Amino acid sequence: MAPRISVVVLYLCLFVGISSESDEYDATIKTMEEFSGYQIHEPVLQDSSSSPLSVNTENLQKQIDELSTFSDAPAPSVTRILYSEKDVLARGYIKNLMSLSGLSIREDAVGNIFGRWVGSEPELAPVSTGSHVDAIPYSGKYDGVVGVLGAIEAINVLRRSGFKPKRSLEVIMFTSEEPTRFGISCLGSRLLAGSKELAELLKRTVDGQNISFSDAAKFAGYTKNEDLSSVFLEKGSYSAFIELHIEQGPILEEEAISIGVVTAIAAPASIKVDFEGNGGHAGAALMPQRNDAGLAAAELALAVEKHVLESGSIDTVGTVGILELHPGAINSIPSKAHLEIDTRDIDEKRRNLVIEKIHQSALSISKSRRVKLSEFKIVNQDPPALSEESIIKATESACQELNMSYKKMISRAYHDSLFMARISPMAMIFIPCYKGYSHKPEEFAAPHDIANGVRVLALTLAKLSVS
Amino acid sequence: MAPRISVVVLYLCLFVGISSESDEYDATIKTMEEFSGYQIHEPVLQDSSSSPLSVNTENLQKQIDELSTFSDAPAPSVTRILYSEKDVLARGYIKNLMSLSGLSIREDAVGNIFGRWVGSEPELAPVSTGSHVDAIPYSGKYDGVVGVLGAIEAINVLRRSGFKPKRSLEVIMFTSEEPTRFGISCLGSRLLAGSKELAELLKRTVDGQNISFSDAAKFAGYTKNEDLSSVFLEKGSYSAFIELHIEQGPILEEEAISIGVVTAIAAPASIKVDFEGNGGHAGAALMPQRNDAGLAAAELALAVEKHVLESGSIDTVGTVGILELHPGAINSIPSKAHLEIDTRDIDEKRRNLVIEKIHQSALSISKSRRVKLSEFKIVNQDPPALSEESIIKATESACQELNMSYKKMISRAYHDSLFMARISPMAMIFIPCYKGYSHKPEEFAAPHDIANGVRVLALTLAKLSVS
Repeated sequence: MAPRISVVVLYLCLFVGISSESDEYDATIKTMEEFSGYQIHEPVLQDSSSSPLSVNTENLQKQIDELSTFSDAPAPSVTRILYSEKDVLARGYIKNLMSLSGLSIREDAVGNIFGRWVGSEPELAPVSTGSHVDAIPYSGKYDGVVGVLGAIEAINVLRRSGFKPKRSLEVIMFTSEEPTRFGISCLGSRLLAGSKELAELLKRTVDGQNISFSDAAKFAGYTKNEDLSSVFLEKGSYSAFIELHIEQGPILEEEAISIGVVTAIAAPASIKVDFEGNGGHAGAALMPQRNDAGLAAAELALAVEKHVLESGSIDTVGTVGILELHPGAINSIPSKAHLEIDTRDIDEKRRNLVIEKIHQSALSISKSRRVKLSEFKIVNQDPPALSEESIIKATESACQELNMSYKKMISRAYHDSLFMARISPMAMIFIPCYKGYSHKPEEFAAPHDIANGVRVLALTLAKLSVS
Repeated sequence: MAPRISVVVLYLCLFVGISSESDEYDATIKTMEEFSGYQIHEPVLQDSSSSPLSVNTENLQKQIDELSTFSDAPAPSVTRILYSEKDVLARGYIKNLMSLSGLSIREDAVGNIFGRWVGSEPELAPVSTGSHVDAIPYSGKYDGVVGVLGAIEAINVLRRSGFKPKRSLEVIMFTSEEPTRFGISCLGSRLLAGSKELAELLKRTVDGQNISFSDAAKFAGYTKNEDLSSVFLEKGSYSAFIELHIEQGPILEEEAISIGVVTAIAAPASIKVDFEGNGGHAGAALMPQRNDAGLAAAELALAVEKHVLESGSIDTVGTVGILELHPGAINSIPSKAHLEIDTRDIDEKRRNLVIEKIHQSALSISKSRRVKLSEFKIVNQDPPALSEESIIKATESACQELNMSYKKMISRAYHDSLFMARISPMAMIFIPCYKGYSHKPEEFAAPHDIANGVRVLALTLAKLSVS
């Protein structure tokens, strides 16, 4: 189907007045500033420029910077862990921006936040967009954030252009895309997609400090109702979902291309492994008497790398991001070692073969080092997801109409989109980022690249809204 | 020189009255119990048995159990870190026991605690004994403790026997034998032995929470005077030092021998290593782009083991007890890795060769994995120590007179004795412990083995006191 809306149509709608709402906005901002003690760079809802779909780049950048200050690590690092004080502050910040953009807000039992711009035919399934704002320890300020603040700005862009949606448009901020606190990635979108296993699991999940999921959520003001099935959404709840995100890889930057249109998301898996030995005194226990759990872990970490490289494909990756020794004293032989392994591929079979080899290595290391393999748990082993052809097409058309270079590509990182794909047609928009860096303070996306992404998102949303 | 005192002489001294002091002791106990809220198993200073040098085994065991309750880990684990609240409580407990045993107490600027029984010729250099009560995370209740509580009981044994020392006898509780908090092992005894380097280093030493040594010591009530040279003792301050300790190895138990007479202490060294790489996203960064600091650390840990085994001697040991990854998230490639390595040998040259090989490996791993070797620091590299022949002989005589089996042996673990050897003639007494376990909750020494050690210690102290 040909797109029914183009940038020209939007251009004609420019300067449709919404200034009558501005007094109300000012009051909201004032209340919020008094309450929270922080300044907010409110959306600009009147356009002073003459170009269609123009993004207020400066304001958006200020919002990205402001959001990054809600962090448990000093700048330029960002650490924002699920349901922490800083996460709660960030949530307040996002809800305020949504409300300043005239969206009606809903939150579910785990804190997924939905901001809806009701369309002219509200009975139709809405078009949705969004991402996350939680951040792993010592990471950067763009991962996820660009897809939430950028989505709100895309709504503002459309409002400024005078566009009126037919299908409602909805911005979603997903809870805990990162697995930091409870070891579960994409917690919010997995639940939205109706994972009964996860709803059950969360009843008995605790974090590293033995705080239950339920208590942590209560701290942040959620799960007054313990029944997490209330979070599930029916298949067909949305006509489309599209997520804007930094590439987290170097391709777009290297090839000087503005937009990546994602056609598939690689299949991630995560594994937890525990080894146990006898420990003992580092001086007194002789080498032949030892069964050092730490050395077993070191061997397995190197085996993960080996098995990944054996796959022969550049698309196979594997990482040991967590390796913890117990008791963790210089003069004590490690009696326990805990590893968390992440492995991904765009080919599910090939990835599962790597997992099987890692398991075999864990068993043989356990045997040769006489340590106990007390846990080998595949925490998740998700299938890959394919983008919906019609959304890909709408995004391509948007790029063409906005005169932007683009390429179709694969997402090797996973995203909430992977789970939204279970209940909705899905696609993603990537923008370039510096050297492909992500999950570290050096993560960076240039303001004009972000603006390009927001413009493509806005036009794609408009197209999908009227289709 | 033949020992001038024997068990027979002590036996003749039995039942010399000290009952006049008991009212005073009761008052002290009462005050202490009211103050601290814990019960104390006070020393028994009147002997109801007829055997010479009899140890109140039950009481001593109760004290060991009581002391183990001052712990930051749940029983049976013990965690007691330098200058923590629990360490301060343990110090109070020891000082109370010393004072109940009639010792006059002195503390120095870092909290080494000295309890002296003044001899009939107080101008002579005293004979000293002692050990430590700090405990690494999740360890046991005997390491060090047996040499402190056992020494106080040895004093009680001598008092009950009616013995009067010629040289004063002194029980020392050393501060921080374990390196847990500030990375410095035998902190107290190193300073006693006059380490100017350490006194300087401690001015700028911080713990893992960035708390300075000085602030930590102040929390525990020490270093009101910042000049740590006040802790130094002159060479010759003691005529002898002898430490009672569990073997922390399996030999005595396996060979069913009661006492180990230590003739030398192995030479320990500790090394801190830091690797730094670029980190990045575990999904998006492809394998050839990576320089994973965690994998560099894993390789080095295995290289430590390899170089130790290459030495060809059973006496060479090496351990990676600490391996920490940053940022420590499952979906983040480690950008930093920190290792702490402990290596020891009874042959200093052979051990130093292992250190050199570890350094070479760290350099070559850094090169091959394109990570930065941002630190390779030899924190200490101590020479081994030999026991004093005259103290060895006195201990052997004591064993013979008490009809106890013994063997001469080497200490592979290091102890405060290693540093006391710099200022005093030194030796050590080992007792068997279960399977040689130490630095873990399963650490155990049987009450009758501890009592044997205390009797040998008491008789040896008596012999050294009159020599």
